[in-house]
Amino acid sequence: MNRRVLIVGGMAAGASCAARLRRLDDRAEIVIFERQPWVSVASCGLPYLAGGVIRDEARLSVETPRSLRERFNIDVRTETEVVSIERDRRAVRVRNLRTRRRAEERYDALVLATGAIPVRPQWPGIDLPGVFCIRTLGDVHSLSTWIDSIKPDRATVIGAGLVGLEMLENLAARGLRMSLIEKMPQVAPVLDREMAEPLLRAIEANRVDVTLGEGVAGFDAGDNGGLIVRTWGGRTIRTGAAIVAVGVKADTALAKAAGLEIGQSGAVRVDTSMRTSDPNIWAVGDAAEAAHTVTGEPCVASQAGPASRQGRIAADSICGRASTFRGVQGTVAFRCFGVTAAVTGATEAALRHTEAEDFEVVYLHPDHHAAYYPGATPISMKILFSREDGLILGAQAVGESGAERRIDVIALAIQKGGTVFDLEEAELCYAPQFGSARDAVNLAGMVAANALRGDMPVAHWSDLRNPCVLIMDVRDADEFAADHIEGSINVPLSELRNRMPDLPACREIWVTCGIGQRAYYAVRMLMQNGFQARVLPGGYRTYCGWYS
Amino acid sequence: MNRRVLIVGGMAAGASCAARLRRLDDRAEIVIFERQPWVSVASCGLPYLAGGVIRDEARLSVETPRSLRERFNIDVRTETEVVSIERDRRAVRVRNLRTRRRAEERYDALVLATGAIPVRPQWPGIDLPGVFCIRTLGDVHSLSTWIDSIKPDRATVIGAGLVGLEMLENLAARGLRMSLIEKMPQVAPVLDREMAEPLLRAIEANRVDVTLGEGVAGFDAGDNGGLIVRTWGGRTIRTGAAIVAVGVKADTALAKAAGLEIGQSGAVRVDTSMRTSDPNIWAVGDAAEAAHTVTGEPCVASQAGPASRQGRIAADSICGRASTFRGVQGTVAFRCFGVTAAVTGATEAALRHTEAEDFEVVYLHPDHHAAYYPGATPISMKILFSREDGLILGAQAVGESGAERRIDVIALAIQKGGTVFDLEEAELCYAPQFGSARDAVNLAGMVAANALRGDMPVAHWSDLRNPCVLIMDVRDADEFAADHIEGSINVPLSELRNRMPDLPACREIWVTCGIGQRAYYAVRMLMQNGFQARVLPGGYRTYCGWYS
Repeated sequence: MNRRVLIVGGMAAGASCAARLRRLDDRAEIVIFERQPWVSVASCGLPYLAGGVIRDEARLSVETPRSLRERFNIDVRTETEVVSIERDRRAVRVRNLRTRRRAEERYDALVLATGAIPVRPQWPGIDLPGVFCIRTLGDVHSLSTWIDSIKPDRATVIGAGLVGLEMLENLAARGLRMSLIEKMPQVAPVLDREMAEPLLRAIEANRVDVTLGEGVAGFDAGDNGGLIVRTWGGRTIRTGAAIVAVGVKADTALAKAAGLEIGQSGAVRVDTSMRTSDPNIWAVGDAAEAAHTVTGEPCVASQAGPASRQGRIAADSICGRASTFRGVQGTVAFRCFGVTAAVTGATEAALRHTEAEDFEVVYLHPDHHAAYYPGATPISMKILFSREDGLILGAQAVGESGAERRIDVIALAIQKGGTVFDLEEAELCYAPQFGSARDAVNLAGMVAANALRGDMPVAHWSDLRNPCVLIMDVRDADEFAADHIEGSINVPLSELRNRMPDLPACREIWVTCGIGQRAYYAVRMLMQNGFQARVLPGGYRTYCGWYS
Repeated sequence: MNRRVLIVGGMAAGASCAARLRRLDDRAEIVIFERQPWVSVASCGLPYLAGGVIRDEARLSVETPRSLRERFNIDVRTETEVVSIERDRRAVRVRNLRTRRRAEERYDALVLATGAIPVRPQWPGIDLPGVFCIRTLGDVHSLSTWIDSIKPDRATVIGAGLVGLEMLENLAARGLRMSLIEKMPQVAPVLDREMAEPLLRAIEANRVDVTLGEGVAGFDAGDNGGLIVRTWGGRTIRTGAAIVAVGVKADTALAKAAGLEIGQSGAVRVDTSMRTSDPNIWAVGDAAEAAHTVTGEPCVASQAGPASRQGRIAADSICGRASTFRGVQGTVAFRCFGVTAAVTGATEAALRHTEAEDFEVVYLHPDHHAAYYPGATPISMKILFSREDGLILGAQAVGESGAERRIDVIALAIQKGGTVFDLEEAELCYAPQFGSARDAVNLAGMVAANALRGDMPVAHWSDLRNPCVLIMDVRDADEFAADHIEGSINVPLSELRNRMPDLPACREIWVTCGIGQRAYYAVRMLMQNGFQARVLPGGYRTYCGWYS
């Protein structure tokens, strides 16, 4: 008898699973059930479809029901909902959404790739016309129809996560004057707050009206089909459309009803081969719980890459192969108003939350390529590493160019248990157009290793208000005059050697400069001359992130 | 007594060594001797200075004699030549090239950072005016003066290595009609031949007259200050300037005269702390021999990154710290006429030469970002890995965008002893503008792992003329009609299932397509239906590299 595999959900994880199954078992009967009329939609492209950057909607579908049938002999049933799982007789009950016909389908293996659904808070007025969530092609169609008919000149995004920021940029590109409301005191909570500053500056530079640290109280109907958004603090924002992008939650309705175990994260509990508590049922993608590779915390593979990997692993497992999912490393990248932000591993916020590691933090702002070649722009980087052995725990990079490349390299290092010493001696691509003899990754390793070896003790920006220390800025006088940390004194690096006799031997000196490099030189000099000195890592540029 | 360290050579490796020494020992007396009037020149920028891309020459000097003195208290003696090493009394004899004054300088530690000198073959006429090597700022000045005075409309580059190709592009950017002569049958011998094809196409598309597989016989004087270049094959090329870029060799004159051990590569033999056979002398950069991290072969750190790392390691060693140089991994990247080529680890040529590993090869041509987002361009990749355990031995990538990023990730993987399975499950940055859910690096890992696991046996392009096999192309009929491998048959993937009964069961089938993906699907289908099948990796696009 040929194996019969049913897959609930035909997006990234489900479609990957189906294609992999076919490659492993040419005789299996493979059926995908998908509620929507489409399968295999690259949902990461939806904001760009909404913004008109992607003009050909068909390109968003990597596969179509037809291509899956013709190429892979996969039976795709779109606009078909799986209503329940009858585990005792290994069957699901399905309903065709067009014909309303119901049927029962038997399985040998069942894969739940049900994805996630947008969180839609119970705010007064959330069901008013003009309020949208963006998760499916259908959502983009609805929004576009609304914009084309109402022709609003303003729109509001609620939630400054990835989808929110991408929608912000894309609707701005359509000529809409944008507002952004975020409950947290920062944009892009996937980053630590100070690392999100360059993004916030770019957003504000693009005439977006930003409200941080305030939630939405509700919506009222406005004039001409418009809306009024009310915030906690009593602000009212007139807008022509509102995009609610405050997160997603795993769609576990089927799994729960069938009594499958649910994990702490709210997604379906699975083992590393993606098998649920029922040995004949697997769960993958946004619906399945995984462990974070650095913190060990339960989480969900919300990115398309790990999600489709899970799909392939489930297929392997169904076919008796021993593949395992190594967990979610938390690599995330996005671009908004010309700034790319990328992160991998754990953030400082996550490490503080789990308290699992004694870690150290450094910042740096290297150029994305050789400074002597025209067009170099800085990348602001943050590296988190174990104080015990230099194991890299996380990294964040934000800049106009090259941030994703550096995070990719560090992501591979984290995967392989790499330390900051490995980054120091990585041999990376250098040509003046796209690198430096000491690449940003090397510099990150060097700064971190210097801190770890005790060559460059680091102070923490959060302790800046410590009255016992002397804050010394070693930039040149004109740079200092332009702006500086309140209460700091100025001793230009080239004068330090001569002015050392005037410095207090009994007080710890915290040294800053533009981006941290000259401060390092100064600290080396001070330490060797008997002073207690620390670098404020990342210099004035990082200070601006912390205390803006 | 304060330590006295003399450094011969003030470019990347020497200047790094000096700066690191100062950070480790604030009291040491540090003297740099440099023949040229400049120090710390980013020589990788010279072609771009020659081409006018870099307009401000001063930017090429990361440090100046003055900045080294003021910031680091380093005594820099430019236009000063070290004439000999008097090892018995730990001294060097120096001569000031301007004043011609001679002196003897005592050292506790001596660092040879003498770099390399361009190979200048004894071709007839090589000393004619208009023939240049490009290694120093002075060389660029001479060339620019020549071009400004003679105003040639043509120039010829001899040697298609990195410097040659960069000069080619930069002189073309100045409006010169360029010729290129290379003795080898390919451009960019740092790559395997088939991987250099996209570069060659870009060079030819930019109206460069290319002569491959032919050396230079000599130069004759031409009209109006011009030159005639004669090749082995009897071609004559009229040109206004000739750039000889046929490699460099370690400048070991001082070391040899002093009786220091010289390695197989012709550079000074050192241990991993960069110490020579004399315990008080270190050698770094282009002058020092290192081991290749993959092949173990003796080589030289010709790139600025490893060279400056060696400088820092020598400084550590001098100050009693146990840093070691891990070897040269062979990461090289450059850009020419809009194409970036990047390589790390060993090439196939190098692996065949050393015969150390039983390796396998795969090719692929993934897009540099999501295909659905406008502007995706392909990256041609080659991955070399151990047949035993999947250890990555080398990788090459060539494309308009994103090649350097993928090689950086693989470079880190090689450094950490990573396998193709690690690449498969790497969690990398994905946003539609700069990545795909399955990044090029993931795909490289998947293709290689499929080959290794036996899921996708690969054929080798070099065996294509094997008459026993059937070459089957699974592209659609119109694609096949446009161009295909001679002697291949066409069975579109979507028809394969039905046409299987007509295929010969006794003959091995080698499957190709556009870039290898459909061939993989076909091979999976064939294998599961009892056929002997292999993929021709990289499909028709790789075929074009092999048999162009």
